[in-house]
Amino acid sequence: MRIAVLGGDGFVGWPTSLHLSNLGHEVHIVDDLSRRWIDTELGVQSLTPMASIQERCRIWKQESGNTIHFHLLNLANEYERVKQWLTECRPDAVIHFAEQRAAPYSMKTDRHKVYTVDNNVNATHNLLAALVETGIDAHLVHLGTMGVYGYSSVGAPIPEGYLNVEIDAPKGKKGMEILYPTRPGSAYHMTKSLDQIMFQFYAQNDGLRITDLHQGIVWGTHTDQTRRHEQLINRFDYDGDYGTVLNRFLIQAAIGYPLTVHGTGGQTRAFIHLQDCVRCIELALSDAPKSGERVKIFNQMTETHRVRDLAKMVAEMTGAEVKFLPNPRKEADENDLIVKNDQFLALGLNPITLQEGLLSEVVDVAKKYAHRIDRSRVPAVSAWTKDIAQRINHNPEARSVA
Amino acid sequence: MRIAVLGGDGFVGWPTSLHLSNLGHEVHIVDDLSRRWIDTELGVQSLTPMASIQERCRIWKQESGNTIHFHLLNLANEYERVKQWLTECRPDAVIHFAEQRAAPYSMKTDRHKVYTVDNNVNATHNLLAALVETGIDAHLVHLGTMGVYGYSSVGAPIPEGYLNVEIDAPKGKKGMEILYPTRPGSAYHMTKSLDQIMFQFYAQNDGLRITDLHQGIVWGTHTDQTRRHEQLINRFDYDGDYGTVLNRFLIQAAIGYPLTVHGTGGQTRAFIHLQDCVRCIELALSDAPKSGERVKIFNQMTETHRVRDLAKMVAEMTGAEVKFLPNPRKEADENDLIVKNDQFLALGLNPITLQEGLLSEVVDVAKKYAHRIDRSRVPAVSAWTKDIAQRINHNPEARSVA
Repeated sequence: MRIAVLGGDGFVGWPTSLHLSNLGHEVHIVDDLSRRWIDTELGVQSLTPMASIQERCRIWKQESGNTIHFHLLNLANEYERVKQWLTECRPDAVIHFAEQRAAPYSMKTDRHKVYTVDNNVNATHNLLAALVETGIDAHLVHLGTMGVYGYSSVGAPIPEGYLNVEIDAPKGKKGMEILYPTRPGSAYHMTKSLDQIMFQFYAQNDGLRITDLHQGIVWGTHTDQTRRHEQLINRFDYDGDYGTVLNRFLIQAAIGYPLTVHGTGGQTRAFIHLQDCVRCIELALSDAPKSGERVKIFNQMTETHRVRDLAKMVAEMTGAEVKFLPNPRKEADENDLIVKNDQFLALGLNPITLQEGLLSEVVDVAKKYAHRIDRSRVPAVSAWTKDIAQRINHNPEARSVA
Repeated sequence: MRIAVLGGDGFVGWPTSLHLSNLGHEVHIVDDLSRRWIDTELGVQSLTPMASIQERCRIWKQESGNTIHFHLLNLANEYERVKQWLTECRPDAVIHFAEQRAAPYSMKTDRHKVYTVDNNVNATHNLLAALVETGIDAHLVHLGTMGVYGYSSVGAPIPEGYLNVEIDAPKGKKGMEILYPTRPGSAYHMTKSLDQIMFQFYAQNDGLRITDLHQGIVWGTHTDQTRRHEQLINRFDYDGDYGTVLNRFLIQAAIGYPLTVHGTGGQTRAFIHLQDCVRCIELALSDAPKSGERVKIFNQMTETHRVRDLAKMVAEMTGAEVKFLPNPRKEADENDLIVKNDQFLALGLNPITLQEGLLSEVVDVAKKYAHRIDRSRVPAVSAWTKDIAQRINHNPEARSVA
């Protein structure tokens, strides 16, 4: 297949591009490189030294013999160029990672909220409008998040996208199938919730074939392909805005920083290893909906854990200290989470669960590049409201006076 | 109260501004005048000769002694100026009409889809982000649409915003209150559905006080204030993109044009007279939610009718011919619609229902300005898909050869 990977220079986009190229697909990365610009804005860098996207593609060609094409294009701002590119590329499938993806970054200031909503909504909608306008019947696979549902302990398993409800009608109960209701907890999660409505409309009105992957929190750093050459190495974020929770614990352990748990650590979240992400995308591509069918929604996760349990596990494995800090987010202290992922299991996913070996691998990567870490960028300091900002701990390493 | 009316130069925005000014409120209109620009783009004009917004405000001052302030400002594109204006104005309430409001215009071409989504989502989100950032605790009243729910004949009354559903949990059924699920049928309706999610988030995260009015199709042209001077006259759209269905029938009758019914005319829609719209907004202002409460959602309509029944009624009243045309929209041929509006009734709304006198008034207005009508702009020709575009009737006045 000819596959376009929008946002293909990112944390999951890059390993996905390599994985699909390795399977023999013709891969076209489209990226505006905004994530690299945000590194510059924040003054942080990936723990791992990333090559440029052009260099990455060059090395991959050298290692595998396969070409990955790169197009510098801003989906959200360059609608006419998006159409032109689609017409030239004519992909069979489009994988859409091209959204600002960090909840803390989206809540950092009002400017970051405005950027995230403008960028993410227009990126998705421009893509949808351009697919309709050009008449290109590509299977659109979108990276969403489990976080659209919020974390409020409904006590029932979250099904894959849809919910059957009953409504009181004059002549008794009537059944109705609805999108499982969302309850986003950040500007970022909100944009993914908006995406869901746009997908529903374009599938219904124009027969677009769309798969929406509601992904859990990604951990790990390597895949089979990123390991093949030092210059194919993946992005690995450790900072308080872009680092994901389990990866951050592993990095903190590696550099002798306290494991920073926010609030009680009672938050239960869904997780998936990076290697499984790229495998899930491969599986989703093999199972496209037909034109006219509803959007196919998968819960792309393999296990759930409570944050404090993860911290405890990493602490026991590494001897690190656990530190409980005020929570910069506005969210429930404690929640349960039960998630169905039957569809990927049925398609043959054999989940990679938390294993000491894989956890140690991440710690080893972190130790190798520890000299690149600015410890002052480790704390999560983007607060959800101005009141919450007052109580953020900006230096969890400081010893208390008492 | 000091009240900002965003989009206060528009079809409902202008009469609302007059109504509130007449009640003694300090009214500030904020508008980018994009609706006037769209008239220019489409080469159509309001049936009624509208004065400029500055002239409207001057005449109102002369007639009533009250000042209405006007600020030229683009909510969607000028975030920093929005904040600055909010800080200077410090409104007690903000009424938000500032979105592109025609479904056919939003589906005209891909450029119109892209404009509508970009403009409407960013206008609403910029306003929300700016309210949070400036800390101005204004009651936000938003004009939404009944159309967010789609028209699929659920057979049950549409409640006011929320639905209690039951979910299968391991230990039996669990109750959950959700936003009544939306199913928008155009890019325009989709943006109002996105707005709803953004309101839910900002009410929850930041305690914004928000009322969302899910309005029916507006008919009529005058209110008590627009009648007071020729130069206070309201906008009145007759074209296929911006004209609303009942007003269009009345105009068509006035100029001897066939009443254009799309499909079977079996579409059931909710209606409200313009005078009731402005009264509902007054009532909503008096009933603001408290900070931390959920978004208050009203169904702002007074009656439902099937489109072909309206055509028949207008035909009987005026002797006009009814013509059934292919439907440019992708929608169900026939649907039922039952809508609850208990909240406005409880607040004292005394609905104006379809009455011969008010219908005749509209016909009289149309006859008075009939010389301003370009008959070629009467048909609705914006098609929902390219397939549908093939069968649009561009000249319903043409006699068939047979």
